[in-house]
Amino acid sequence: MNRDRVRALLHAVRQGELDPDEALESLARLPFVDVPDARVDTHRALRHGLPEVVYAPGKTVEQIAAVVRALRDAGQDALVTRVEPGLAAELCRAIEDADYDARARLLWTGPEPVPVVGKGTIAVVCAGTADVPVAAEAALVARRFGNRVEALFDVGVAGLHRLLASSEVLRSARVLVVVAGMEGALPSVVGGLVDKPVIAVPTSVGYGASFGGVAALLGMLTSCASNVSVVNIDNGFGAAYVATLINRL
Amino acid sequence: MNRDRVRALLHAVRQGELDPDEALESLARLPFVDVPDARVDTHRALRHGLPEVVYAPGKTVEQIAAVVRALRDAGQDALVTRVEPGLAAELCRAIEDADYDARARLLWTGPEPVPVVGKGTIAVVCAGTADVPVAAEAALVARRFGNRVEALFDVGVAGLHRLLASSEVLRSARVLVVVAGMEGALPSVVGGLVDKPVIAVPTSVGYGASFGGVAALLGMLTSCASNVSVVNIDNGFGAAYVATLINRL
Amino acid sequence: MNRDRVRALLHAVRQGELDPDEALESLARLPFVDVPDARVDTHRALRHGLPEVVYAPGKTVEQIAAVVRALRDAGQDALVTRVEPGLAAELCRAIEDADYDARARLLWTGPEPVPVVGKGTIAVVCAGTADVPVAAEAALVARRFGNRVEALFDVGVAGLHRLLASSEVLRSARVLVVVAGMEGALPSVVGGLVDKPVIAVPTSVGYGASFGGVAALLGMLTSCASNVSVVNIDNGFGAAYVATLINRL
Amino acid sequence: MNRDRVRALLHAVRQGELDPDEALESLARLPFVDVPDARVDTHRALRHGLPEVVYAPGKTVEQIAAVVRALRDAGQDALVTRVEPGLAAELCRAIEDADYDARARLLWTGPEPVPVVGKGTIAVVCAGTADVPVAAEAALVARRFGNRVEALFDVGVAGLHRLLASSEVLRSARVLVVVAGMEGALPSVVGGLVDKPVIAVPTSVGYGASFGGVAALLGMLTSCASNVSVVNIDNGFGAAYVATLINRL
Amino acid sequence: MNRDRVRALLHAVRQGELDPDEALESLARLPFVDVPDARVDTHRALRHGLPEVVYAPGKTVEQIAAVVRALRDAGQDALVTRVEPGLAAELCRAIEDADYDARARLLWTGPEPVPVVGKGTIAVVCAGTADVPVAAEAALVARRFGNRVEALFDVGVAGLHRLLASSEVLRSARVLVVVAGMEGALPSVVGGLVDKPVIAVPTSVGYGASFGGVAALLGMLTSCASNVSVVNIDNGFGAAYVATLINRL
Amino acid sequence: MNRDRVRALLHAVRQGELDPDEALESLARLPFVDVPDARVDTHRALRHGLPEVVYAPGKTVEQIAAVVRALRDAGQDALVTRVEPGLAAELCRAIEDADYDARARLLWTGPEPVPVVGKGTIAVVCAGTADVPVAAEAALVARRFGNRVEALFDVGVAGLHRLLASSEVLRSARVLVVVAGMEGALPSVVGGLVDKPVIAVPTSVGYGASFGGVAALLGMLTSCASNVSVVNIDNGFGAAYVATLINRL
Amino acid sequence: MNRDRVRALLHAVRQGELDPDEALESLARLPFVDVPDARVDTHRALRHGLPEVVYAPGKTVEQIAAVVRALRDAGQDALVTRVEPGLAAELCRAIEDADYDARARLLWTGPEPVPVVGKGTIAVVCAGTADVPVAAEAALVARRFGNRVEALFDVGVAGLHRLLASSEVLRSARVLVVVAGMEGALPSVVGGLVDKPVIAVPTSVGYGASFGGVAALLGMLTSCASNVSVVNIDNGFGAAYVATLINRL
Amino acid sequence: MNRDRVRALLHAVRQGELDPDEALESLARLPFVDVPDARVDTHRALRHGLPEVVYAPGKTVEQIAAVVRALRDAGQDALVTRVEPGLAAELCRAIEDADYDARARLLWTGPEPVPVVGKGTIAVVCAGTADVPVAAEAALVARRFGNRVEALFDVGVAGLHRLLASSEVLRSARVLVVVAGMEGALPSVVGGLVDKPVIAVPTSVGYGASFGGVAALLGMLTSCASNVSVVNIDNGFGAAYVATLINRL
Repeated sequence: MNRDRVRALLHAVRQGELDPDEALESLARLPFVDVPDARVDTHRALRHGLPEVVYAPGKTVEQIAAVVRALRDAGQDALVTRVEPGLAAELCRAIEDADYDARARLLWTGPEPVPVVGKGTIAVVCAGTADVPVAAEAALVARRFGNRVEALFDVGVAGLHRLLASSEVLRSARVLVVVAGMEGALPSVVGGLVDKPVIAVPTSVGYGASFGGVAALLGMLTSCASNVSVVNIDNGFGAAYVATLINRL
Repeated sequence: MNRDRVRALLHAVRQGELDPDEALESLARLPFVDVPDARVDTHRALRHGLPEVVYAPGKTVEQIAAVVRALRDAGQDALVTRVEPGLAAELCRAIEDADYDARARLLWTGPEPVPVVGKGTIAVVCAGTADVPVAAEAALVARRFGNRVEALFDVGVAGLHRLLASSEVLRSARVLVVVAGMEGALPSVVGGLVDKPVIAVPTSVGYGASFGGVAALLGMLTSCASNVSVVNIDNGFGAAYVATLINRL
Repeated sequence: MNRDRVRALLHAVRQGELDPDEALESLARLPFVDVPDARVDTHRALRHGLPEVVYAPGKTVEQIAAVVRALRDAGQDALVTRVEPGLAAELCRAIEDADYDARARLLWTGPEPVPVVGKGTIAVVCAGTADVPVAAEAALVARRFGNRVEALFDVGVAGLHRLLASSEVLRSARVLVVVAGMEGALPSVVGGLVDKPVIAVPTSVGYGASFGGVAALLGMLTSCASNVSVVNIDNGFGAAYVATLINRL
Repeated sequence: MNRDRVRALLHAVRQGELDPDEALESLARLPFVDVPDARVDTHRALRHGLPEVVYAPGKTVEQIAAVVRALRDAGQDALVTRVEPGLAAELCRAIEDADYDARARLLWTGPEPVPVVGKGTIAVVCAGTADVPVAAEAALVARRFGNRVEALFDVGVAGLHRLLASSEVLRSARVLVVVAGMEGALPSVVGGLVDKPVIAVPTSVGYGASFGGVAALLGMLTSCASNVSVVNIDNGFGAAYVATLINRL
Repeated sequence: MNRDRVRALLHAVRQGELDPDEALESLARLPFVDVPDARVDTHRALRHGLPEVVYAPGKTVEQIAAVVRALRDAGQDALVTRVEPGLAAELCRAIEDADYDARARLLWTGPEPVPVVGKGTIAVVCAGTADVPVAAEAALVARRFGNRVEALFDVGVAGLHRLLASSEVLRSARVLVVVAGMEGALPSVVGGLVDKPVIAVPTSVGYGASFGGVAALLGMLTSCASNVSVVNIDNGFGAAYVATLINRL
Repeated sequence: MNRDRVRALLHAVRQGELDPDEALESLARLPFVDVPDARVDTHRALRHGLPEVVYAPGKTVEQIAAVVRALRDAGQDALVTRVEPGLAAELCRAIEDADYDARARLLWTGPEPVPVVGKGTIAVVCAGTADVPVAAEAALVARRFGNRVEALFDVGVAGLHRLLASSEVLRSARVLVVVAGMEGALPSVVGGLVDKPVIAVPTSVGYGASFGGVAALLGMLTSCASNVSVVNIDNGFGAAYVATLINRL
Repeated sequence: MNRDRVRALLHAVRQGELDPDEALESLARLPFVDVPDARVDTHRALRHGLPEVVYAPGKTVEQIAAVVRALRDAGQDALVTRVEPGLAAELCRAIEDADYDARARLLWTGPEPVPVVGKGTIAVVCAGTADVPVAAEAALVARRFGNRVEALFDVGVAGLHRLLASSEVLRSARVLVVVAGMEGALPSVVGGLVDKPVIAVPTSVGYGASFGGVAALLGMLTSCASNVSVVNIDNGFGAAYVATLINRL
Repeated sequence: MNRDRVRALLHAVRQGELDPDEALESLARLPFVDVPDARVDTHRALRHGLPEVVYAPGKTVEQIAAVVRALRDAGQDALVTRVEPGLAAELCRAIEDADYDARARLLWTGPEPVPVVGKGTIAVVCAGTADVPVAAEAALVARRFGNRVEALFDVGVAGLHRLLASSEVLRSARVLVVVAGMEGALPSVVGGLVDKPVIAVPTSVGYGASFGGVAALLGMLTSCASNVSVVNIDNGFGAAYVATLINRL
């Protein structure tokens, strides 16, 4: 995978410093550790400069703890998303030194605070109070990933003055994460006010024809603002991840 | 159906002025005229004070012309919607004195101009140039139904300043028809700026995840502005009809 | 936003009564109050003449109570929708003088009774007994918003005589809210009997191919009665809101 | 399959009148004729007492003609459905003595008129003029299958008086076929007026949220009238077939 | 509604036996009784010859009991569908002499056994063991409505020999109710084996791509057997109702 | 059904060894046993060489136990799928000698270990830890059906090196079962690496736009790798069944 | 990718026969040829033993011809699918020695006949005449891929005797491709009759609730026959490809 | 909107240099020009540093030409997307100096070449030849917006070696646009190979279960690679727009 390392290997073989079969083994030995039911990617931190992330739903306490410990044994931090309070309590017993934020449903290991490496500010904007958990996830993930974050909550489009009153925050951001349920119109309006990339996050907030976030998702995908791209419904984590990569450019 | 008329009939029967069987016939004889494949409702003009409307798609020239003539024979006007230019040419040959507007795809018989009976102004607002045919249908139907109409086109939410520059028009309307395709966010924003009823019309304008107007429809149904109600995709006629009834109150 | 107020501000600046930077601040200072996770719109009562409304699901007791108290501190009433009995009990402990109606799942602060300001009567019609919670929400919201309300329940289209027996109620209304689940045919039939605007509310009542209200929603959107517009599934509140604005015209 | 025939075969084998291998062949030799790309079921007329029916779309002129001829060679009539005029012209050239009805898009061979064998009358009711092709298919198929048919067209639910004026027709039918597009509410209303089985046929008539007949289909499946069962969108033929079987009981 | 009764009324008015206003009242006074939240249709038994049916979900014990008692006061039987065991226990306390069948989730008042008035046998056929509750509902409703019923369970199409072994039962029925979840293919196969009307009932049995019964529903609607009509997902009651009306012809 | 057996029967009849009516009975007596609510197919083991399988959801403990016992009485093994731990405990009490695997949610009777009759190895590959239950079901069913199985878990496409490191396992398999949720891309990638049949199993793992496995299902159906066929969402059992039949060829 | 070749390369480097940088180049130089807009995979024939296949829709004559010529220059055959007659005529002009079958919409280069390498027979079964194009594609692809093929057309489940009469064909196949539109029930029935793998192909044949093949697709995915796996709608080619791989095992 | 400009205005008013009413006018006079049916945003070039873009479908030649001319009169460039060849010919007649690229369906005015202002390279990667039009749109838009672009076409995931052979191109990009139809798996694989933001574009390429791009869209939204965000189906333009903004950071 890594061209330089392959070249070094091949030169070592050429100079008789490395046996061809060992080289073959080495080419195949890849940067992961097998724990039961999982192959933990211990090199992602090196590749992306970010801690490994575990999505909790559908995994047992044991499976999650095994991954987090495998990462710690490799000298790395972990971030676990969508951790409900009950699971969090169990995980905190199983993993020493884990921190937890209930509003953002995040659990993590690693230093506090995280050094800021992002070049600018990520604005996390959300439409309604019920969207706050997703927006909080995005904001906290972005902070754990080394970004300055400005949060602007409950500024839905049906009361534009609330949003316009904070347009300074919007315009000073280097990249924006915009979270909205219901009709999901906020990214279109925010996208029209700024000239920076907007990562839109539909939420499953709503009822009836919101169809669990589908209305917001479709609205964001068909946004008439061209600077909007979209992540999955309720995926505050993914939006923060993309925003982080952009903010490091 | 008409209580007073039933009472009158019954009194006539009581006084021997009317035979019971004739009365029975009379109760059953209802205000429509049968033409081939259609029962033309000649009394709707009386009941609703509006011309009878024919939706053209799926009907032959002969079927439409028969209905329009039956109405004229009953002394009434007609309005035919969704008339494509080819059909319009044929209908204009078949129906004397018909008028046609290609942009709004409307064909009608009746006086020009129509006397204004609506109490205030209906604002017809639309998001993009491609939504204009639907908005034009709404505006022209509203005019044919006796309303003053203000049209405000191409004021989508991704360039809010274009909309806000005309906020006077929005606020002076008694009822608003707001037409938008794509993400359909315009009714939410307009709804937040006014305190009048907003009739939202999703259009089939868009591609991909707009799914022929579904994205806009869902967005409008889940609008966070509470003064918004919705009609079918591309139903500019229906929005104008509802707005007309409201404007006559 | 308010043209007159902007003009007054500018004149004050002109005459040296107001410092430009203060004016700027004033232009930006908008009518809301920040509480944790929410921006409470304290001026909506002034703008729309209606109490601020809070949609409860997805919000904590603390978040709701904070908003209601912020409104009371601004001298305003509040209406909280979709309040299940358990939440209601908690809210009633947290908010003094709150009232609650379990059938309509509404909680509110403010005077009892509300003075009537609507010009006519709003008829709230519903198809089946299982639709009653949504219809009751619509009827009570309409009453809290200052309207006379006539309720007509369990008059579904498969037993037309039950509906026709009350056609007097339908015809004397100035605007109608029609609530139905299953196939959602009631607004089409009612719409054909009256010449007033009909706000249709699909409900999630039904099973199988009702798909949580989708069948009723689609039926209402494609209604062959032109005086029908539609709000979201189970949105009794929204229908009452729209009907209230119409009834004040 | 046929128990009596199997018994007869077995007795013939017992008495040495039939060779076991011939019997085996006979058990396997079933009542169809192979033509290219089709296995024509020549015994359905015997089993169901109805002509074999060919659904034209997706078949070539040659394929259809081969089936019709194979049936004629077996002394049977044929009915071809969904035959557009162009195809009809070609088929009429290929099949002598074929008859065609353009409105119902039906082509057939066989006697004219068909003797009536149905016990009562089948009422075919349809909501709008654009639904007429489907209703005409149902009515003509029912006639070709030996039923008396009463047709009642353009009696949609938004103008109930048109329907109620013909309630005599509805009540005198032994079984009813009710055809409607848009919101598909007509079967619910008709179902409430009669105590006979109602076969509902959704049509693809409509636009936007009618989704090619889905709105009508869902409305009919969730009908609050219990005497309604449903066939596929635009399946006038199928409704007539079911109604015919019922009318022969 | 009732032509004869209207004629009688009118003659009474003619002969001075009835005051016109009383006649008017009489025309409007329709056969239902108002209980809280419901209009009980006390004349359906007369019109359809069947007990009134209450669909339990979404109704309270009090609402159901009030309807059943109103019916009893009018001398009529009641049948309550989809009654889960907990609700059944409460209803049995509230309604004396009610009977309950847990497998079919039915509760009823009335004589046991019901006199047979259906002319032939209704076969109720079901594909898998998990479909049994819906099939049991259909079978018991059909019995309560005065039909002879033959039940044939667990005869899915992937083991055709189980079905073919009982083909005698299928062929001796006058009308068939066929219940299936998953791919819903059983009605097509049964429909091909008989020449009687088949009422198909899709069930929500299945997982994944069965989408809660949608796969079965679509399969039944597109059945290549022409004698199949369809009711809503899990609607065993509706199928029995339709089959009953057919079996009385 | 079985041609040889029919021939033998017929010859026996010919030679007077068998009475025709007994032969008829024999032709009709098919290989199943009726237990309450089920027709147990006791000959499937003979026909397919595989134990009979019971899908647990929607069946009661009594129904499942009756089927398993009927199979045992016929000298056959049984395999029960989707058995949650609570149900498993009840079944283990009702059925002696049953074994249970909680991760795979399988319960079975029969020998341990099963003799290997499959010709090669079945590779069971899965994308993420949350997909493990479905993959474990596939792997254990394949083992119970007499196959050698290689399991390769947590090798999703976003970390290709984890998959490529085990490409030897992929290439040495005779048939592959590939299990993935979310975007379901793994079968396309695996399919491109091998020249053997790949059975793809979408899982319901995911959230938002995964729509309970629909995203993965559609992705697998539209795979650009031509050696991929697909089974239902979460259907690990079905994939193992198909793979077993292939591995016996 | 190829472990042996990598080992050989490394040994060559060790023995000084190959320069490390050349080896690196060699590792990266992969078996494809770039033509405009395409990367032609010239080694697939070697890897899978099958000709390269081009899916025609969305490609220009020039793009297709360039790929076919690049393959021929590499000494390989090509198969082009979904070639409509007009395109076929143009391609036959551009590619010398190409053959075309209009019913199967296939165009190919290579020897005629193809040597048989498949071990058994592939049965291609289809439900209706309108499904024939998809079934013909499957049958011809299977023949071009070196299989013996038995075709059995027009044997839909509503006339079971047509299918059962050919059960010998079904049972003698080593693998079956079953093609059906409408409700797609045929694979379930066939799957129950055989103990071999069944590849099910839904077709877009049908109307209304068949939704372009969705009904058949869902029916096949939820088949109660466990030996069924499914490919995309109308994907006769893919089914033949999978069947070929199985038939070579 | 522009705080500095508002401050300047207010100071001018303070110093008597500007009349309050003129200031008010100025605050309302926003940067657009009205042409028939459109409000052209002449300041977007200033705000975003990018030419104004017109989406052609649904607009007439006259409407498009009017917008392009209004922009030119304001000294600005224009880019028109989704221009089919016929429309392009008409537009080139109506607009002098317009350029057109048929493969990318783009028409534009402005300098050639465009000066490069993007900081790095944008890689445009696409899965299959049929996806080329969308990828070409993305690549050309990115070039017109001042970026260096590397294009890598026909590297779908079922032949990974084609993609891996170009991994150098992927890793040297600052931001990537990845275009794929069918199952849309390419962004997941590419996303796993790079540590830069990936903009995924689903295309409508495919058939059957690709549902016009829905399969690819869902696959991309649920991608297991966290650095992926998504734009609308076929929206090559939007992806290039977002990538451009990122590449300018």
